[in-house]
Amino acid sequence: MSQEGYNVTPWEARGKIDYDKLIQEFGVERLSEPLLARINTLAGGLHPLLRRGFFFAHRDLSLVLDDYEAGRGFFLYTGRAPSKAPMHIAHIVPFIATRWLQHSFGVNTYIEIPDEEKFLAKKVDSLEEVEPYIRQDILNIAALGFDENKTFIFRDSEYIGKMYRPAVLVARHINLSTARAVFGFDNETSIGLIFYPALQIVPTLFENRRPLIPCGIDQDPYFRLQRDIAPRLNRYKTAELLSKLAWGLTGPESKMSASEPETAIMLNDPPEVVKKKIMNAFTGGRATVEEQRKLGGVPEVCTVFHWYSLLFEEDDKKLEERYWACKTGKLLCGECKAELVKRINHFLALHNEKVKDVEKKVSKYMYDGKLAQEMWNWEFKP
Amino acid sequence: MSQEGYNVTPWEARGKIDYDKLIQEFGVERLSEPLLARINTLAGGLHPLLRRGFFFAHRDLSLVLDDYEAGRGFFLYTGRAPSKAPMHIAHIVPFIATRWLQHSFGVNTYIEIPDEEKFLAKKVDSLEEVEPYIRQDILNIAALGFDENKTFIFRDSEYIGKMYRPAVLVARHINLSTARAVFGFDNETSIGLIFYPALQIVPTLFENRRPLIPCGIDQDPYFRLQRDIAPRLNRYKTAELLSKLAWGLTGPESKMSASEPETAIMLNDPPEVVKKKIMNAFTGGRATVEEQRKLGGVPEVCTVFHWYSLLFEEDDKKLEERYWACKTGKLLCGECKAELVKRINHFLALHNEKVKDVEKKVSKYMYDGKLAQEMWNWEFKP
Repeated sequence: MSQEGYNVTPWEARGKIDYDKLIQEFGVERLSEPLLARINTLAGGLHPLLRRGFFFAHRDLSLVLDDYEAGRGFFLYTGRAPSKAPMHIAHIVPFIATRWLQHSFGVNTYIEIPDEEKFLAKKVDSLEEVEPYIRQDILNIAALGFDENKTFIFRDSEYIGKMYRPAVLVARHINLSTARAVFGFDNETSIGLIFYPALQIVPTLFENRRPLIPCGIDQDPYFRLQRDIAPRLNRYKTAELLSKLAWGLTGPESKMSASEPETAIMLNDPPEVVKKKIMNAFTGGRATVEEQRKLGGVPEVCTVFHWYSLLFEEDDKKLEERYWACKTGKLLCGECKAELVKRINHFLALHNEKVKDVEKKVSKYMYDGKLAQEMWNWEFKP
Repeated sequence: MSQEGYNVTPWEARGKIDYDKLIQEFGVERLSEPLLARINTLAGGLHPLLRRGFFFAHRDLSLVLDDYEAGRGFFLYTGRAPSKAPMHIAHIVPFIATRWLQHSFGVNTYIEIPDEEKFLAKKVDSLEEVEPYIRQDILNIAALGFDENKTFIFRDSEYIGKMYRPAVLVARHINLSTARAVFGFDNETSIGLIFYPALQIVPTLFENRRPLIPCGIDQDPYFRLQRDIAPRLNRYKTAELLSKLAWGLTGPESKMSASEPETAIMLNDPPEVVKKKIMNAFTGGRATVEEQRKLGGVPEVCTVFHWYSLLFEEDDKKLEERYWACKTGKLLCGECKAELVKRINHFLALHNEKVKDVEKKVSKYMYDGKLAQEMWNWEFKP
């Protein structure tokens, strides 16, 4: 297993996706050191997901900071399409970044739950099938600690009364050929899914401030469309804080997927399942203990190290120590995995306690917190 | 001007559209004498629009009558997409038939006002442009005398909260290729218009009874799609009562169109405008009075005679007398037109008084009549 082609700084471990090339292809900007320094100053710190380069690119982020400094403010927008499986730890990464941004800048946050999308995308067979997961997803998100008076979590099917009119204004500006090009719709696509992008764009119009969307770079095309339309509706173009793709457990090129359980740690996995999945995870380890002691591991391609760096080692110094301990053959995979299992299970136990606690106040996010109340009285005025 | 190719019974005057061929092409059934006789018996009469063959074809109408006789009942559904012009007399023809059916059978009637459609179809430039006409359209429709406790008139943009979920269920069953084939969508079509047919189908699911839609035969393809989908949602296929196309004033092949004022009598045309338009209307008259006295007119192609037969002569015997008076050269166009002007202006004066009266109770149809209240609490359960 060669080291070539992999970045060697531990907080920028990566697989084969050439993110430099993506920056060029998508025409986005690199999250530069000076910009990170500026965030650091304004936010009073930098979240590990930012300082370790997982968020690596952006659109208009410096304008967002200008707006913040000038007192015009900005707002955050993200979402989660419920499916017929629980959320996994890769799903919560952008929410964790969003929550950090909310706390650091004290801004409103809108979380769309498109409860119809997977059905329209023919990924589930009925709306009923998804229903049990919708509430669970909302609880999982709310449990991450969003501000209950500055966060509005809404289901499309419930909030459509407020969304439809602005969606019509948006939809008028998206013709079929554009939608096909951006979203890859084909002849088998349902007409509901073809309309759906308009609903995904509506929350970017909720305030007459700049929206900031923390998301994977693969989501950029959706919001590039918003950037074409927003000025025609007298609204701001979305700014984006773009991340790399979180790895699944089967390798740097895998994704966590609920339909392939070995790739993902679900938020409701019991401890022994977490253990089994991590013990079977793809690592940068050698074929034998002897080889590993002699040659060292390859943390750059190791999914276990990847997840330490994303969520399970907050201390940069300790992460670097782990990196070099692996690299020099001092740390073997078994020990490193066992520790990750412990940390994930600790995280999940805490998280699921928070989920229970949040149940009592989830209606604040959806209906009766300060922002939620405002939004149930909101009307779009271009 | 030849008489060939025109039907000679006065109550079936028609232009060049071959409706027999359309019956075959669309695969619908002719509105036969025995079926008309059955309606006559059950309804205690036949509306001129039915007995004169303007409504000439159907789908499943005998099943509707079976349902009625068996006590299962049925319901009526129609609609009107507001534009940036007032309604004209051709627009109200299907509503007049619908109202007659409601009164004759005592059934619930749903009237959709798709206040977003013309905007999504790029026929108007803003939603604001349409707004003043929406209320006027609703008043014009309500003024025709629908039962205020059995009629629900709803605007898409207001009622979308109830419609979206069933629309999603419908949309899942309509893929892009079908929508393109049925509605002729192309690359320039907005994604909002592509979704719209799902919203047009939703009212056919409002009751677990058979829906009957009185409409022009050109609307049949829309509801044929409904007939494919309804069984999958455990609902009835729509029945249809299909009419010919009402003529514009410029000839049997013209349509009334607000954008060509000479073709249409608008519901708010002042008497002198009505007079001017009718005086300029295309008739079956001859070049000179002498010729007309000698050869007689051709009522079969006469737009003036057409409108007598549709709305302005209820008495079949008098209509037939008019037919023969024309045919034999006894009645000249000037006199015939002057009489129609009088009748139209009388109708419009009465109608616009009813519009004023209905203003006080329009909220019954939309919000607080018996059916309206039920519908604001409705939820679709397949």
